[in-house]
Amino acid sequence: MPTTTQTESAILLIHCPDRTGLVAAVTDWLFKHDGNILYLDQHVDQQEGIFFMRVEWDLARFNIPREKIGEFFQISIADRYAMRWGLHFSDEKPRMAIFVSKLGHCLYDILSHTESGEWPVQVPLIISNHPHLEPVARRAGIDYHLLPVTPETKSEAERRQLDLLEQYQIDLVVLARYMQILSAQFIARYPNRIINIHHSFLPAFAGANPYRAAHERGVKIIGATAHYVTPELDAGPIIEQDVTRVSHKDSVADMVRKGQDLEKLVLSRAIWYHLKRKVLVYGNRTVVFG
Amino acid sequence: MPTTTQTESAILLIHCPDRTGLVAAVTDWLFKHDGNILYLDQHVDQQEGIFFMRVEWDLARFNIPREKIGEFFQISIADRYAMRWGLHFSDEKPRMAIFVSKLGHCLYDILSHTESGEWPVQVPLIISNHPHLEPVARRAGIDYHLLPVTPETKSEAERRQLDLLEQYQIDLVVLARYMQILSAQFIARYPNRIINIHHSFLPAFAGANPYRAAHERGVKIIGATAHYVTPELDAGPIIEQDVTRVSHKDSVADMVRKGQDLEKLVLSRAIWYHLKRKVLVYGNRTVVFG
Amino acid sequence: MPTTTQTESAILLIHCPDRTGLVAAVTDWLFKHDGNILYLDQHVDQQEGIFFMRVEWDLARFNIPREKIGEFFQISIADRYAMRWGLHFSDEKPRMAIFVSKLGHCLYDILSHTESGEWPVQVPLIISNHPHLEPVARRAGIDYHLLPVTPETKSEAERRQLDLLEQYQIDLVVLARYMQILSAQFIARYPNRIINIHHSFLPAFAGANPYRAAHERGVKIIGATAHYVTPELDAGPIIEQDVTRVSHKDSVADMVRKGQDLEKLVLSRAIWYHLKRKVLVYGNRTVVFG
Amino acid sequence: MPTTTQTESAILLIHCPDRTGLVAAVTDWLFKHDGNILYLDQHVDQQEGIFFMRVEWDLARFNIPREKIGEFFQISIADRYAMRWGLHFSDEKPRMAIFVSKLGHCLYDILSHTESGEWPVQVPLIISNHPHLEPVARRAGIDYHLLPVTPETKSEAERRQLDLLEQYQIDLVVLARYMQILSAQFIARYPNRIINIHHSFLPAFAGANPYRAAHERGVKIIGATAHYVTPELDAGPIIEQDVTRVSHKDSVADMVRKGQDLEKLVLSRAIWYHLKRKVLVYGNRTVVFG
Repeated sequence: MPTTTQTESAILLIHCPDRTGLVAAVTDWLFKHDGNILYLDQHVDQQEGIFFMRVEWDLARFNIPREKIGEFFQISIADRYAMRWGLHFSDEKPRMAIFVSKLGHCLYDILSHTESGEWPVQVPLIISNHPHLEPVARRAGIDYHLLPVTPETKSEAERRQLDLLEQYQIDLVVLARYMQILSAQFIARYPNRIINIHHSFLPAFAGANPYRAAHERGVKIIGATAHYVTPELDAGPIIEQDVTRVSHKDSVADMVRKGQDLEKLVLSRAIWYHLKRKVLVYGNRTVVFG
Repeated sequence: MPTTTQTESAILLIHCPDRTGLVAAVTDWLFKHDGNILYLDQHVDQQEGIFFMRVEWDLARFNIPREKIGEFFQISIADRYAMRWGLHFSDEKPRMAIFVSKLGHCLYDILSHTESGEWPVQVPLIISNHPHLEPVARRAGIDYHLLPVTPETKSEAERRQLDLLEQYQIDLVVLARYMQILSAQFIARYPNRIINIHHSFLPAFAGANPYRAAHERGVKIIGATAHYVTPELDAGPIIEQDVTRVSHKDSVADMVRKGQDLEKLVLSRAIWYHLKRKVLVYGNRTVVFG
Repeated sequence: MPTTTQTESAILLIHCPDRTGLVAAVTDWLFKHDGNILYLDQHVDQQEGIFFMRVEWDLARFNIPREKIGEFFQISIADRYAMRWGLHFSDEKPRMAIFVSKLGHCLYDILSHTESGEWPVQVPLIISNHPHLEPVARRAGIDYHLLPVTPETKSEAERRQLDLLEQYQIDLVVLARYMQILSAQFIARYPNRIINIHHSFLPAFAGANPYRAAHERGVKIIGATAHYVTPELDAGPIIEQDVTRVSHKDSVADMVRKGQDLEKLVLSRAIWYHLKRKVLVYGNRTVVFG
Repeated sequence: MPTTTQTESAILLIHCPDRTGLVAAVTDWLFKHDGNILYLDQHVDQQEGIFFMRVEWDLARFNIPREKIGEFFQISIADRYAMRWGLHFSDEKPRMAIFVSKLGHCLYDILSHTESGEWPVQVPLIISNHPHLEPVARRAGIDYHLLPVTPETKSEAERRQLDLLEQYQIDLVVLARYMQILSAQFIARYPNRIINIHHSFLPAFAGANPYRAAHERGVKIIGATAHYVTPELDAGPIIEQDVTRVSHKDSVADMVRKGQDLEKLVLSRAIWYHLKRKVLVYGNRTVVFG
């Protein structure tokens, strides 16, 4: 996407009840205001009757001031079609917090992407219930807050976590193999803004010890799943999944090793989709405009 | 795609130089004529500056008579934007000829799809340079013409093949492991309408004996490639590819066996994309609106 | 495997408690009787302490008469190590029955393999609860028995199915999208000799309508699973699995279409592993010496 | 492989002309010296008539002293069968040097594995022709030597590189997207001990700019290949390959992004196979006992 890096662009994510003329309405509005469309994806869920659209256009000649775009779109288009929408700009850099426990493979992979400047994101904060990865955070120049969690201290820990998220003005929380379950209250504060990586091909092997369960069931393929966190464990909207082949030769330890490669890839891809504003959530599913 | 099977729809495949307002122009035209968009895919090749679009809409309330749609579109839209386009209807059933030699796996797979009624196609004709698969054709009720090919008889055989294609009013030719090279003259008669399956991951191992070559090179993955046939051997626009893993345990015979599964799948997928009017060819590449 | 087709070979499938010297004992015995090993695979489940071995050797110079091999092996080796074993010969052709309902894609794929002579198998019998695929069976010259199944007639139908299996001397039963659940009594007659294809990535989406369930859960990958049938539904030892990517664009009908390609491939691979005596079952898992 | 981490084990990699009794000879020798086999893999290249074997056994009760194993094996077994072999111990930690240029994704991935202690390896040395990744090396506590390379300074740079490899007692060199071609003289010093990652599915798109070439050819799948370096560019024995799907939507930049995920995974897997002594090279191919 060379164009998007050379100039600022705007992105609209839209969904609404399906009807005739929706694409025409949006694209005509953009055209009349001299917006050159860079990417347009749309999808109709025929069964549910919902229309989804992602459109990205060049702001160079667009004749509505940036700060007025939302207001104009609401009045000119969204009101008429009962659209729900989100507006983003390609030069924004959301602020992301990473939650970890002891395992570092996902964190390394994320840092590889963020330190190279490949992702439009800032990472000011890492939170963990263990001290293991503090050196990695410190080396990367990221604040590391150690908040141990026990059944007794869990609510207090969550309160402090939320304070930190607010203090650091966090937009997106990534659970990079963070081995604690968040409360419904916590999750409600960041709806569709907490991404978790689960080390199985959901819905198979939800819950604890998925590799052991996969080994016992004798599956020939294992997987990993990145999803938005909802109060029901491992049941939130799936953003991305991938799999790899295993055989009888693979012990649980081998599955863990092979699975970690999946986990980091799948989580990083999901973060990238989120940061690039390619994900729309509806009901318990996602539209990912890859 | 339940909708497309319940009612007739029209499909436009468009490409033209990119400029602002193309999506708006097409969708607005459809909207004004009461065309309800079922699917819309568009793509801009930013490097080449070309705009591609596939749009499928419901004909139920569309207020231009079916036989006038092309003419109206040309005058109202295409002329203005220098668009090249193709118009298709979901209830059309193209006529497909299958060329085979001795191996039957691709033919079986194609017949599995056509006999179940899954594909919108008619198959009145099978041509072969060998007698082996005649029983399969006869059982399926398809005419089988045996045209042996030797260096001396090749031009005569091609002349007779072309006569048969004309006589049977063939729209699409599928080379289902047909082990003869077609002449440039033949190919020129069916531009982007001859689909071949090559038993390697092109451009690796073009030409004869790709599995032997793959074995000698010691690759860990083998593939198959479906492409439109152009005069340059195995160099035409790629429609679909897929791969599978091999190891040192796999002899050439094992690679052949594993590869045949790929060949039939990849070829059938490519035919399906073609029949569903999802493929646009430009230069030596394809846009496949999957 | 050019060698195995040029000459007869014998195959031993062995499992027993693990201990030192097992490979030495078997290979030394083969060596002393002039058996040239063509393939040797072994595996130790370290956790369970079980040793598995598949060894295939050339019979050309082997100095134990074919009909005495089992007896000699039992006395010389198996008794000493408490081995359980099966002996097979490469020139044997097991007799396979295929159960179908209405969908033909798996049957076509199986016939493609059997009619080409690729598989060492005979297929004398197809049983169905519907008449749809009778023409396909008749064309292939295979007896087709229509046994409709209703809740009331189920036990009677199973009794007649078992009679047919006996009459046709069937060694292996393949459920090629046969949409009926077999009783525990039926299954007990063919332990680890009934192969089913389930149209999901088990253990996800066991039971009915897996594609609909996958669509509702919003997964990004769908799969198919071939397994030996046990009394617990969709819970038997898995032989083979494979997956393919889907997206929000895929309706349930699209998933069905993509999934059918998986189903036929996965089922055919599982049958091939079984016929080639590459599968060992222990507990609820398989060792597949690919 | 829990066992191998709990105790020391020895690994023999063997190849020799195929003949009857080879497995028996080796396993019988191990058995007589109280060696408990943990893993045994063997393969016969029927076409070339070569026998390959990897056997790993527990040293706990083995009654030949560790330092005498090679000598005893040579005299008792290897001499008789003209075997070529390598002996390794699970508690050895080879010394690995990493060569990089500007791109860090492979380096990050390698460090993720080495810093977690997952790999049996030491990494004392990073060599680069650019300063970009020096901070990453310094943070990880690894010496970083900047040796710029120009056509004029190339031989001098290689001489200094070789000095460093000797000084640091390096066993294995990994080219982690090092964008320089090594001379035949350099390569001859580390035969089958230099691993390179090439950013294409070899043999397709050897040489420079493979992603651009893949984009121009319009392939639907891209890949990455890890191989041992030989004097002929991108033509050495392949250790591991993997692929990912692309479409017309993917610009060259998108292919680079998707490809980098492949590159790091494929390179890390190849290093792991090498470190675990699972790779045998013969001719221009590898046997990888996965």
